[in-house]
Amino acid sequence: MTPDDVRYDERGLVPAIVQQHDSGEVLMLAWMTRETLAETLAGGETVFWSRSRGQRWHKGETSGNTQHVVAVTADCDGDVVLVQVDQGGAGVACHTGRRSCFHRPVAR
Amino acid sequence: MTPDDVRYDERGLVPAIVQQHDSGEVLMLAWMTRETLAETLAGGETVFWSRSRGQRWHKGETSGNTQHVVAVTADCDGDVVLVQVDQGGAGVACHTGRRSCFHRPVAR
Repeated sequence: MTPDDVRYDERGLVPAIVQQHDSGEVLMLAWMTRETLAETLAGGETVFWSRSRGQRWHKGETSGNTQHVVAVTADCDGDVVLVQVDQGGAGVACHTGRRSCFHRPVAR
Repeated sequence: MTPDDVRYDERGLVPAIVQQHDSGEVLMLAWMTRETLAETLAGGETVFWSRSRGQRWHKGETSGNTQHVVAVTADCDGDVVLVQVDQGGAGVACHTGRRSCFHRPVAR
């Protein structure tokens, strides 16, 4: 399928799960538009839509922590994408300096 | 943190990435309310909110493909949760009969 076949929500966004391709570690979840998904596929580096800033966000453009795309797969409903990457730069995906954004245990 | 500390969207939902705890395979993405996240933590099996049906959805209740919760972690922003599970039943998460919902390659 192509970016045109993906189902975007009412804001024109699709959730993109970013996973380190070899270790399987889930690094982050961000959002893409049709345009930033197409740019991700064309350029081979992740490009998202920043909901807080309301603009295109080429991950690592300033930090150097770009993500090199290995494969992009949609789910059965076509409304979520899984982006398998090689996390470049210092190997850090999270703005806190941690490798993965998922580091806050949730308990009862 | 607890379910009360998670940041839900304007619909009261948070995206929940479900990952097989040992292989690292991303199985699916579904949505949780505060209540279904609390129920997931209390009962040790994933419970979601079905947006299409507008109701609570105990995964595997009819299919037998329940997911046994190993760990739940929120991301840095607290607005996404990663649920690491042991996929039970026939080891199948997707309603198509595939192990993972992510099986549709996306290309230019």
